[in-house]
Amino acid sequence: MEKYKGPSIPRCGLSIKGRILAVDDSPFERGKDADTFLVGIMFRDLVIELSMKERISVDGDDSTEALIRMVRSPKLREEVRVVMSHGTTFAGLNVVDVSRFYEETGIPLIAVTSKVPTNEIERAIVSAGMIEKLEIVRRNPPYNPLRTPKGVCFYSTIGMSGDEAERVILRYIVESKVPEQLRIVDIVSRLLAGCRYQVE
Amino acid sequence: MEKYKGPSIPRCGLSIKGRILAVDDSPFERGKDADTFLVGIMFRDLVIELSMKERISVDGDDSTEALIRMVRSPKLREEVRVVMSHGTTFAGLNVVDVSRFYEETGIPLIAVTSKVPTNEIERAIVSAGMIEKLEIVRRNPPYNPLRTPKGVCFYSTIGMSGDEAERVILRYIVESKVPEQLRIVDIVSRLLAGCRYQVE
Repeated sequence: MEKYKGPSIPRCGLSIKGRILAVDDSPFERGKDADTFLVGIMFRDLVIELSMKERISVDGDDSTEALIRMVRSPKLREEVRVVMSHGTTFAGLNVVDVSRFYEETGIPLIAVTSKVPTNEIERAIVSAGMIEKLEIVRRNPPYNPLRTPKGVCFYSTIGMSGDEAERVILRYIVESKVPEQLRIVDIVSRLLAGCRYQVE
Repeated sequence: MEKYKGPSIPRCGLSIKGRILAVDDSPFERGKDADTFLVGIMFRDLVIELSMKERISVDGDDSTEALIRMVRSPKLREEVRVVMSHGTTFAGLNVVDVSRFYEETGIPLIAVTSKVPTNEIERAIVSAGMIEKLEIVRRNPPYNPLRTPKGVCFYSTIGMSGDEAERVILRYIVESKVPEQLRIVDIVSRLLAGCRYQVE
Protein backbone atom coordinates (compact mmCIF):
# COMPACT_ATOMS: atom_id res chain seq x y z
CA MET A 1 0.00 0.00 0.00
CA GLU A 2 1.15 3.50 -0.71
CA LYS A 3 1.47 6.04 2.02
CA TYR A 4 -1.80 7.77 2.98
CA LYS A 5 -1.99 10.93 0.92
CA GLY A 6 -5.22 12.30 2.30
CA PRO A 7 -8.47 11.93 0.44
CA SER A 8 -9.51 15.06 -1.34
CA ILE A 9 -13.18 15.27 -2.06
CA PRO A 10 -13.44 18.68 -3.69
CA ARG A 11 -14.80 21.62 -1.73
CA CYS A 12 -15.41 24.02 -4.57
CA GLY A 13 -17.53 27.04 -5.45
CA LEU A 14 -20.85 26.37 -3.74
CA SER A 15 -20.71 27.56 -0.17
CA ILE A 16 -20.80 25.04 2.66
CA LYS A 17 -24.39 26.17 3.28
CA GLY A 18 -25.32 25.53 -0.33
CA ARG A 19 -26.48 21.95 -0.51
CA ILE A 20 -27.41 20.16 -3.71
CA LEU A 21 -30.38 17.82 -3.74
CA ALA A 22 -30.02 15.21 -6.49
CA VAL A 23 -33.18 13.32 -7.43
CA ASP A 24 -34.09 10.33 -9.55
CA ASP A 25 -36.83 7.71 -9.53
CA SER A 26 -36.45 4.06 -8.59
CA PRO A 27 -37.19 1.25 -11.05
CA PHE A 28 -40.73 -0.09 -11.35
CA GLU A 29 -42.61 -2.62 -13.44
CA ARG A 30 -45.29 -1.19 -15.65
CA GLY A 31 -48.59 -3.01 -15.25
CA LYS A 32 -47.57 -4.37 -11.88
CA ASP A 33 -46.46 -1.46 -9.72
CA ALA A 34 -48.93 1.33 -9.00
CA ASP A 35 -46.19 3.45 -7.52
CA THR A 36 -42.47 3.81 -7.15
CA PHE A 37 -40.15 6.20 -5.32
CA LEU A 38 -38.63 9.55 -5.99
CA VAL A 39 -35.24 9.32 -4.29
CA GLY A 40 -33.33 12.35 -3.07
CA ILE A 41 -29.75 12.50 -1.89
CA MET A 42 -28.48 15.70 -0.35
CA PHE A 43 -24.86 16.56 -1.06
CA ARG A 44 -22.41 19.13 0.21
CA ASP A 45 -20.35 19.36 -2.96
CA LEU A 46 -19.67 15.65 -3.55
CA VAL A 47 -20.11 14.61 0.08
CA ILE A 48 -23.31 12.63 0.71
CA GLU A 49 -25.19 14.01 3.70
CA LEU A 50 -28.55 12.27 3.75
CA SER A 51 -31.01 10.26 1.71
CA MET A 52 -34.78 10.38 1.49
CA LYS A 53 -37.66 9.05 -0.56
CA GLU A 54 -41.21 10.02 -1.49
CA ARG A 55 -43.76 7.71 -3.04
CA ILE A 56 -44.97 8.75 -6.49
CA SER A 57 -47.56 7.03 -8.64
CA VAL A 58 -46.74 5.45 -11.98
CA ASP A 59 -47.98 7.76 -14.78
CA GLY A 60 -49.48 9.96 -12.05
CA ASP A 61 -49.38 13.70 -11.40
CA ASP A 62 -47.72 13.83 -8.00
CA SER A 63 -44.01 14.20 -8.79
CA THR A 64 -44.08 18.02 -8.49
CA GLU A 65 -45.64 17.81 -5.03
CA ALA A 66 -43.23 15.03 -4.03
CA LEU A 67 -40.29 17.21 -5.00
CA ILE A 68 -41.74 20.20 -3.13
CA ARG A 69 -42.33 18.05 -0.02
CA MET A 70 -38.76 16.81 -0.30
CA VAL A 71 -37.10 20.24 -0.34
CA ARG A 72 -39.41 21.36 2.48
CA SER A 73 -38.52 18.36 4.63
CA PRO A 74 -37.32 19.44 8.08
CA LYS A 75 -34.39 17.02 7.58
CA LEU A 76 -33.03 19.40 4.95
CA ARG A 77 -33.30 22.45 7.20
CA GLU A 78 -33.82 24.69 4.17
CA GLU A 79 -30.23 24.19 3.11
CA VAL A 80 -30.83 23.09 -0.47
CA ARG A 81 -29.54 25.73 -2.85
CA VAL A 82 -30.12 23.85 -6.07
CA VAL A 83 -32.00 20.74 -7.16
CA MET A 84 -30.45 18.53 -9.81
CA SER A 85 -32.86 16.08 -11.36
CA HIS A 86 -32.38 13.23 -13.76
CA GLY A 87 -34.68 14.64 -16.42
CA THR A 88 -38.12 15.99 -15.57
CA THR A 89 -40.32 12.93 -16.06
CA PHE A 90 -40.40 10.25 -13.39
CA ALA A 91 -42.33 7.03 -12.80
CA GLY A 92 -43.36 6.70 -16.42
CA LEU A 93 -45.26 9.85 -17.37
CA ASN A 94 -45.28 11.63 -14.03
CA VAL A 95 -44.07 14.99 -15.36
CA VAL A 96 -42.57 17.56 -12.97
CA ASP A 97 -44.08 21.01 -13.45
CA VAL A 98 -40.77 22.83 -13.25
CA SER A 99 -42.21 26.37 -13.18
CA ARG A 100 -44.59 25.45 -10.39
CA PHE A 101 -41.76 23.88 -8.41
CA TYR A 102 -39.69 27.03 -8.73
CA GLU A 103 -42.59 29.40 -8.01
CA GLU A 104 -43.50 27.54 -4.85
CA THR A 105 -40.02 26.96 -3.48
CA GLY A 106 -37.74 29.61 -5.00
CA ILE A 107 -35.10 26.89 -5.43
CA PRO A 108 -33.37 26.73 -8.83
CA LEU A 109 -33.51 23.41 -10.62
CA ILE A 110 -31.21 21.88 -13.22
CA ALA A 111 -32.51 18.83 -15.08
CA VAL A 112 -29.81 16.83 -16.84
CA THR A 113 -30.05 13.91 -19.19
CA SER A 114 -27.40 11.97 -21.04
CA LYS A 115 -29.68 11.15 -23.98
CA VAL A 116 -30.72 13.46 -26.82
CA PRO A 117 -34.18 14.78 -25.94
CA THR A 118 -36.86 13.62 -28.38
CA ASN A 119 -40.60 14.08 -28.46
CA GLU A 120 -40.97 10.47 -27.32
CA ILE A 121 -42.57 11.57 -24.05
CA GLU A 122 -45.06 13.77 -25.87
CA ARG A 123 -45.99 10.85 -28.12
CA ALA A 124 -46.36 8.53 -25.13
CA ILE A 125 -48.56 11.09 -23.37
CA VAL A 126 -50.80 11.42 -26.40
CA SER A 127 -51.09 7.69 -26.94
CA ALA A 128 -51.91 7.22 -23.24
CA GLY A 129 -54.67 9.82 -23.61
CA MET A 130 -53.16 12.08 -20.94
CA ILE A 131 -53.39 15.25 -23.01
CA GLU A 132 -53.46 17.53 -19.97
CA LYS A 133 -49.80 16.58 -19.30
CA LEU A 134 -48.74 17.94 -22.69
CA GLU A 135 -49.23 21.48 -21.46
CA ILE A 136 -46.75 20.89 -18.61
CA VAL A 137 -44.17 19.28 -20.88
CA ARG A 138 -44.40 22.19 -23.32
CA ARG A 139 -44.24 24.81 -20.59
CA ASN A 140 -41.12 23.24 -19.05
CA PRO A 141 -37.89 24.98 -20.07
CA PRO A 142 -36.22 23.47 -23.16
CA TYR A 143 -33.14 21.24 -23.06
CA ASN A 144 -29.81 22.58 -24.33
CA PRO A 145 -26.75 20.55 -25.27
CA LEU A 146 -23.57 20.95 -23.22
CA ARG A 147 -20.18 19.58 -24.18
CA THR A 148 -18.43 18.05 -21.17
CA PRO A 149 -15.07 16.27 -20.91
CA LYS A 150 -17.04 12.99 -20.90
CA GLY A 151 -19.37 13.71 -23.82
CA VAL A 152 -22.44 15.80 -24.57
CA CYS A 153 -25.25 16.00 -22.03
CA PHE A 154 -28.49 18.00 -22.19
CA TYR A 155 -29.82 20.30 -19.53
CA SER A 156 -32.88 22.37 -18.79
CA THR A 157 -32.90 24.94 -16.02
CA ILE A 158 -35.04 27.36 -14.09
CA GLY A 159 -34.03 29.96 -11.52
CA MET A 160 -30.50 30.41 -12.86
CA SER A 161 -28.94 31.44 -16.16
CA GLY A 162 -27.75 28.90 -18.67
CA ASP A 163 -24.18 29.99 -17.98
CA GLU A 164 -24.56 29.38 -14.26
CA ALA A 165 -26.21 25.99 -14.82
CA GLU A 166 -23.42 24.98 -17.19
CA ARG A 167 -20.78 25.93 -14.63
CA VAL A 168 -22.51 23.86 -11.95
CA ILE A 169 -22.82 20.85 -14.26
CA LEU A 170 -19.23 21.05 -15.48
CA ARG A 171 -17.94 21.42 -11.94
CA TYR A 172 -19.35 18.01 -11.08
CA ILE A 173 -18.54 15.99 -14.18
CA VAL A 174 -16.29 13.27 -12.76
CA GLU A 175 -17.08 9.76 -13.96
CA SER A 176 -19.69 10.31 -16.65
CA LYS A 177 -21.29 13.04 -18.71
CA VAL A 178 -23.85 13.81 -16.02
CA PRO A 179 -22.95 15.46 -12.71
CA GLU A 180 -21.58 12.96 -10.21
CA GLN A 181 -24.50 13.57 -7.84
CA LEU A 182 -26.93 12.34 -10.52
CA ARG A 183 -24.76 9.34 -11.35
CA ILE A 184 -24.80 8.41 -7.66
CA VAL A 185 -28.54 8.89 -7.09
CA ASP A 186 -29.19 6.71 -10.14
CA ILE A 187 -27.11 3.86 -8.70
CA VAL A 188 -28.56 4.21 -5.24
CA SER A 189 -32.21 4.49 -6.32
CA ARG A 190 -31.92 1.00 -7.82
CA LEU A 191 -31.78 -0.37 -4.29
CA LEU A 192 -35.49 0.40 -4.06
CA ALA A 193 -36.45 -1.88 -6.96
CA GLY A 194 -38.94 -4.45 -5.73
CA CYS A 195 -39.78 -2.43 -2.63
CA ARG A 196 -43.25 -1.41 -1.57
CA TYR A 197 -44.05 1.17 1.00
CA GLN A 198 -45.98 -0.45 3.80
CA VAL A 199 -48.55 1.90 5.29
CA GLU A 200 -49.06 1.39 9.02
CA MET B 1 -19.04 30.94 -8.96
CA GLU B 2 -15.35 30.16 -8.90
CA LYS B 3 -13.59 28.80 -11.91
CA TYR B 4 -13.87 25.05 -12.36
CA LYS B 5 -10.85 23.52 -10.70
CA GLY B 6 -11.53 19.90 -11.55
CA PRO B 7 -13.01 17.52 -9.03
CA SER B 8 -10.49 15.23 -7.49
CA ILE B 9 -11.92 12.09 -6.03
CA PRO B 10 -8.81 10.32 -4.82
CA ARG B 11 -7.36 7.43 -6.77
CA CYS B 12 -5.07 6.03 -4.17
CA GLY B 13 -3.30 2.79 -3.20
CA LEU B 14 -5.80 0.09 -4.09
CA SER B 15 -5.49 -0.84 -7.70
CA ILE B 16 -8.28 -0.03 -10.11
CA LYS B 17 -9.13 -3.74 -10.01
CA GLY B 18 -9.38 -3.69 -6.25
CA ARG B 19 -12.94 -2.83 -5.40
CA ILE B 20 -14.23 -2.32 -1.89
CA LEU B 21 -17.65 -3.66 -0.93
CA ALA B 22 -19.11 -1.66 1.98
CA VAL B 23 -22.03 -3.29 3.82
CA ASP B 24 -24.56 -2.27 6.42
CA ASP B 25 -28.11 -3.26 7.31
CA SER B 26 -31.22 -1.19 6.76
CA PRO B 27 -33.44 -0.06 9.64
CA PHE B 28 -36.23 -2.37 10.87
CA GLU B 29 -38.84 -2.41 13.59
CA ARG B 30 -38.43 -5.14 16.14
CA GLY B 31 -41.65 -7.07 16.71
CA LYS B 32 -43.05 -5.93 13.38
CA ASP B 33 -40.49 -6.74 10.69
CA ALA B 34 -39.45 -10.36 10.18
CA ASP B 35 -36.66 -9.29 7.91
CA THR B 36 -34.63 -6.37 6.69
CA PHE B 37 -31.89 -5.84 4.12
CA LEU B 38 -28.16 -6.16 4.04
CA VAL B 39 -27.09 -3.38 1.70
CA GLY B 40 -23.85 -3.46 -0.26
CA ILE B 41 -22.26 -0.63 -2.20
CA MET B 42 -19.25 -1.37 -4.36
CA PHE B 43 -16.64 1.35 -4.55
CA ARG B 44 -13.54 1.98 -6.61
CA ASP B 45 -11.70 4.02 -4.03
CA LEU B 46 -14.41 6.57 -3.15
CA VAL B 47 -16.26 6.26 -6.44
CA ILE B 48 -19.62 4.47 -6.13
CA GLU B 49 -19.99 1.80 -8.79
CA LEU B 50 -23.09 -0.18 -7.88
CA SER B 51 -25.54 -0.99 -5.14
CA MET B 52 -27.19 -4.23 -4.13
CA LYS B 53 -29.28 -5.76 -1.37
CA GLU B 54 -29.95 -9.15 0.17
CA ARG B 55 -32.81 -9.95 2.50
CA ILE B 56 -31.78 -11.09 5.98
CA SER B 57 -34.02 -12.14 8.84
CA VAL B 58 -34.26 -10.22 12.08
CA ASP B 59 -32.30 -12.10 14.78
CA GLY B 60 -31.72 -14.84 12.18
CA ASP B 61 -28.64 -16.76 11.08
CA ASP B 62 -28.45 -15.83 7.42
CA SER B 63 -26.19 -12.76 7.34
CA THR B 64 -23.05 -14.81 6.61
CA GLU B 65 -24.71 -16.45 3.61
CA ALA B 66 -26.13 -13.13 2.45
CA LEU B 67 -22.66 -11.62 2.51
CA ILE B 68 -21.20 -14.60 0.65
CA ARG B 69 -23.97 -14.38 -1.99
CA MET B 70 -23.25 -10.70 -2.34
CA VAL B 71 -19.53 -11.02 -3.08
CA ARG B 72 -20.28 -13.93 -5.45
CA SER B 73 -22.86 -11.91 -7.35
CA PRO B 74 -22.12 -11.86 -11.09
CA LYS B 75 -22.66 -8.07 -10.93
CA LEU B 76 -19.43 -7.80 -8.97
CA ARG B 77 -17.44 -9.86 -11.47
CA GLU B 78 -15.14 -11.08 -8.68
CA GLU B 79 -13.61 -7.64 -8.38
CA VAL B 80 -14.07 -7.14 -4.65
CA ARG B 81 -10.71 -7.08 -2.95
CA VAL B 82 -11.90 -6.22 0.55
CA VAL B 83 -15.20 -6.10 2.38
CA MET B 84 -15.78 -3.31 4.88
CA SER B 85 -18.69 -3.92 7.21
CA HIS B 86 -20.37 -1.75 9.79
CA GLY B 87 -19.71 -4.11 12.67
CA THR B 88 -20.39 -7.83 12.44
CA THR B 89 -23.95 -8.08 13.75
CA PHE B 90 -26.84 -7.11 11.51
CA ALA B 91 -30.63 -7.17 11.73
CA GLY B 92 -30.64 -7.43 15.51
CA LEU B 93 -28.66 -10.54 16.45
CA ASN B 94 -27.85 -11.88 13.00
CA VAL B 95 -24.14 -12.42 13.62
CA VAL B 96 -21.74 -12.73 10.68
CA ASP B 97 -19.43 -15.71 11.04
CA VAL B 98 -16.33 -13.86 9.91
CA SER B 99 -14.03 -16.90 9.73
CA ARG B 100 -16.56 -18.81 7.64
CA PHE B 101 -16.96 -15.85 5.32
CA TYR B 102 -13.20 -15.65 4.80
CA GLU B 103 -12.74 -19.43 4.44
CA GLU B 104 -15.43 -19.63 1.79
CA THR B 105 -14.54 -16.54 -0.22
CA GLY B 106 -10.87 -15.76 0.44
CA ILE B 107 -11.82 -12.07 0.62
CA PRO B 108 -10.41 -10.11 3.57
CA LEU B 109 -12.93 -8.30 5.74
CA ILE B 110 -12.57 -5.25 7.95
CA ALA B 111 -15.39 -4.57 10.39
CA VAL B 112 -15.41 -1.04 11.78
CA THR B 113 -17.52 0.56 14.46
CA SER B 114 -17.50 4.03 15.92
CA LYS B 115 -18.66 2.87 19.37
CA VAL B 116 -16.60 1.18 22.04
CA PRO B 117 -17.32 -2.56 21.77
CA THR B 118 -19.07 -3.94 24.84
CA ASN B 119 -20.46 -7.35 25.68
CA GLU B 120 -23.95 -5.97 25.09
CA ILE B 121 -24.47 -8.30 22.14
CA GLU B 122 -23.40 -11.32 24.17
CA ARG B 123 -25.87 -10.34 26.91
CA ALA B 124 -28.65 -9.83 24.37
CA ILE B 125 -27.90 -13.23 22.84
CA VAL B 126 -28.05 -14.92 26.22
CA SER B 127 -31.25 -13.19 27.25
CA ALA B 128 -32.83 -14.12 23.90
CA GLY B 129 -31.86 -17.76 24.54
CA MET B 130 -29.78 -17.96 21.36
CA ILE B 131 -26.77 -19.51 23.02
CA GLU B 132 -25.50 -21.12 19.80
CA LYS B 133 -24.70 -17.61 18.50
CA LEU B 134 -22.30 -16.97 21.40
CA GLU B 135 -19.80 -19.34 19.85
CA ILE B 136 -19.70 -17.30 16.63
CA VAL B 137 -19.37 -13.98 18.47
CA ARG B 138 -16.47 -15.36 20.52
CA ARG B 139 -14.75 -16.90 17.53
CA ASN B 140 -14.91 -13.65 15.55
CA PRO B 141 -11.66 -11.65 15.64
CA PRO B 142 -11.49 -9.08 18.47
CA TYR B 143 -11.92 -5.33 17.98
CA ASN B 144 -8.92 -3.03 18.32
CA PRO B 145 -8.99 0.73 18.82
CA LEU B 146 -7.57 2.97 16.11
CA ARG B 147 -6.88 6.66 16.48
CA THR B 148 -7.99 8.58 13.38
CA PRO B 149 -7.96 12.32 12.62
CA LYS B 150 -11.70 12.30 13.42
CA GLY B 151 -11.57 10.31 16.68
CA VAL B 152 -11.11 6.73 17.79
CA CYS B 153 -12.82 3.92 15.92
CA PHE B 154 -12.64 0.18 16.52
CA TYR B 155 -11.89 -2.49 13.95
CA SER B 156 -11.76 -6.22 13.64
CA THR B 157 -10.17 -7.89 10.65
CA ILE B 158 -9.55 -11.20 8.95
CA GLY B 159 -7.40 -11.96 5.93
CA MET B 160 -5.04 -9.04 6.41
CA SER B 161 -2.69 -7.83 9.13
CA GLY B 162 -3.76 -5.20 11.64
CA ASP B 163 -1.27 -2.81 10.06
CA GLU B 164 -2.76 -3.28 6.61
CA ALA B 165 -6.32 -2.89 7.90
CA GLU B 166 -5.34 0.31 9.72
CA ARG B 167 -3.83 1.74 6.56
CA VAL B 168 -6.98 0.99 4.59
CA ILE B 169 -9.19 2.56 7.27
CA LEU B 170 -7.03 5.67 7.65
CA ARG B 171 -6.86 6.14 3.90
CA TYR B 172 -10.63 6.57 3.79
CA ILE B 173 -11.30 8.67 6.86
CA VAL B 174 -12.85 11.81 5.35
CA GLU B 175 -15.96 13.06 7.10
CA SER B 176 -16.16 10.89 10.19
CA LYS B 177 -14.18 8.41 12.21
CA VAL B 178 -15.31 5.49 10.06
CA PRO B 179 -14.18 4.99 6.45
CA GLU B 180 -16.17 7.13 4.04
CA GLN B 181 -17.56 4.04 2.30
CA LEU B 182 -19.20 2.92 5.56
CA ARG B 183 -20.55 6.40 6.29
CA ILE B 184 -22.14 6.39 2.83
CA VAL B 185 -23.65 2.90 3.01
CA ASP B 186 -25.15 3.83 6.39
CA ILE B 187 -26.89 6.89 4.89
CA VAL B 188 -28.04 5.04 1.81
CA SER B 189 -29.30 1.92 3.60
CA ARG B 190 -31.82 4.14 5.43
CA LEU B 191 -33.67 4.52 2.12
CA LEU B 192 -34.85 0.95 2.62
CA ALA B 193 -36.62 1.64 5.91
CA GLY B 194 -40.27 0.67 5.57
CA CYS B 195 -39.61 -1.45 2.47
CA ARG B 196 -40.56 -5.07 2.06
CA TYR B 197 -39.28 -7.37 -0.56
CA GLN B 198 -42.15 -8.61 -2.64
CA VAL B 199 -41.64 -12.17 -3.81
CA GLU B 200 -43.12 -12.84 -7.24
